[in-house]
Amino acid sequence: MTRLNATLERIQPVDPQWIERARARQLELTKPPGSLGRLEEIANRVAAIQGSLTPNVDRARIVLFAADHGVCAEGVNPYPQAVTAQMVANFLRGGAAINALARSAGVELEIVDAGVVHDIPVTEGLIRCPISRGTANFCTGPAMTEEQAIAALLLGVERSDGAANLQGMGEMGIANTTAASAVAAALTGLDPAAVIGRGTGADDACMARKRSAVERALALHGPQLHSPLDILRRLGGFEIGAMAGLCLDAAARRCAVLVDGFIATAAAALAVRFHPAVGDYLIPAHRSTEPGHAPLLEIVGHRPLLDLEMRLGEGTGAALAVPIVRAAVAAFTGMATFASAGVSQAS
Amino acid sequence: MTRLNATLERIQPVDPQWIERARARQLELTKPPGSLGRLEEIANRVAAIQGSLTPNVDRARIVLFAADHGVCAEGVNPYPQAVTAQMVANFLRGGAAINALARSAGVELEIVDAGVVHDIPVTEGLIRCPISRGTANFCTGPAMTEEQAIAALLLGVERSDGAANLQGMGEMGIANTTAASAVAAALTGLDPAAVIGRGTGADDACMARKRSAVERALALHGPQLHSPLDILRRLGGFEIGAMAGLCLDAAARRCAVLVDGFIATAAAALAVRFHPAVGDYLIPAHRSTEPGHAPLLEIVGHRPLLDLEMRLGEGTGAALAVPIVRAAVAAFTGMATFASAGVSQAS
Repeated sequence: MTRLNATLERIQPVDPQWIERARARQLELTKPPGSLGRLEEIANRVAAIQGSLTPNVDRARIVLFAADHGVCAEGVNPYPQAVTAQMVANFLRGGAAINALARSAGVELEIVDAGVVHDIPVTEGLIRCPISRGTANFCTGPAMTEEQAIAALLLGVERSDGAANLQGMGEMGIANTTAASAVAAALTGLDPAAVIGRGTGADDACMARKRSAVERALALHGPQLHSPLDILRRLGGFEIGAMAGLCLDAAARRCAVLVDGFIATAAAALAVRFHPAVGDYLIPAHRSTEPGHAPLLEIVGHRPLLDLEMRLGEGTGAALAVPIVRAAVAAFTGMATFASAGVSQAS
Repeated sequence: MTRLNATLERIQPVDPQWIERARARQLELTKPPGSLGRLEEIANRVAAIQGSLTPNVDRARIVLFAADHGVCAEGVNPYPQAVTAQMVANFLRGGAAINALARSAGVELEIVDAGVVHDIPVTEGLIRCPISRGTANFCTGPAMTEEQAIAALLLGVERSDGAANLQGMGEMGIANTTAASAVAAALTGLDPAAVIGRGTGADDACMARKRSAVERALALHGPQLHSPLDILRRLGGFEIGAMAGLCLDAAARRCAVLVDGFIATAAAALAVRFHPAVGDYLIPAHRSTEPGHAPLLEIVGHRPLLDLEMRLGEGTGAALAVPIVRAAVAAFTGMATFASAGVSQAS
């Protein structure tokens, strides 16, 4: 815990004076006050995060953590577990949605094996840091040991890059919407039925198994869920822990983090429970179609930028939001002022 | 009218078979069916517009038409009319929001004087095609002659670029939310009060004058509003006509058009009334905060991609949506298939 505590101790809230300075600057730019809407809100937040009226988000990167889940044995997903390893190979060959979106947006992408069960048939470019070959089935015991939970968090801390000025996280792991649903139920206190969705395309029978698995897990672990570490250890996944760790390190480094959809938001919400000031550094990228996403967003504390009915994960929503954040910062730092451009203001 | 009719006669509906072909292709790509949500819808539409399963949107451009409005004399706007010319100079020097957003997204920007009243203090880079120095006040007579309305439409046809594969349009013109509100009321049959908003920041007194101006215009011109040309001529503006003309030419060339906010959507809705198949080529970029935008979007026939509470115009929403469309097309054309990547499908 010592290294994790060192990260947690470095996290400071964003200074609200920087938000006010950024707001004042926005009023000088050649546009009606507030007319860029949420772009102004985002630029002001990035300025405050970086403590600068000339913030920069040119070095954007997404770290995609892949891991498998013991709860897959409960038949909660229409895809076989082997797909996690197959998709990691697809990421490394550049053929997945996140590859196309990251290329399109000019975003660096890093693929991390955080604990995949099956052999991954491609190695080039893969960051191999498996905590273990998949978690245990949380319907019958904790998903991982406390040491593994801390190792997952520290994996995220290590993969966070101090040279980046905008980070995002993505995930791959068959059955991880079930793990994220269990984490969401534990974090929010909501009934499992309220936080369970169809994920990658569960049919009614699959949905019933998913709900049953989360209900049994909460019945089994509920009395022991006292801390975010308990929730991660008993109900989470290695990729969820790593994404939470990346949020913690990014906050400690004063770097904005684009939070992807449902599973990434479960990790971000865990990070906020580890340290409440983490939320100051989080920018939810998009609104997932998963019903458990909205209550998790309330913990994270900000509205998503995009609502495009996506439900893929991989960091695709984060990649899609990078150009929006860059546009917000470009307007803030690149526009002329009324004075410099000789434009009359409103009467 | 001969040249305009030649454009109208070349417009054909999009072949729905191409949408089906694109949908079938989407199912082969390595993602759960439908999981990219509206990105799939957009990619399928662009594929159908271009009649290709390898569509391309690398050559994106936005044409910004500036013009002044006689109704400005009614005190409908908090900014003086001179701001139109001042902002055109700002565009040419690269200091406005649209410049920053176009640069950020890698979009070519063209600035056209379609009829600005005041002298523009910068000339370099300006396309000078003024129809006249501003329209007449539509509270006391038609905004323009029939010849001027046709000239405005043809200006848009001429500025549309056959070499582009994604076009967008923007506008600048003090008081043009009032003109767009009058056009919206005429197109939708709604009461002026339902389509009037605060524009660039009108206070209550300004809003009352805006509403009164539109009500008087509809009382004066209502019996003569038989065609989209009548509506443009009596209530529109030169930039509104030019944006409508750009939509017509883009549709004739089978090029997708990103429609900006309220005023651009009024122009796009006029274009749809000139030829119903134009709607097949239009992609609304964002949802404006103006109350008249939603009813105009019903005429255009598609939902906006973004909702970021923007109300600036200039084509800023269109520029912001370019990376989204590029991402949609990049995923569609750049992803591996389940077969090629060796990824198992759902059971």
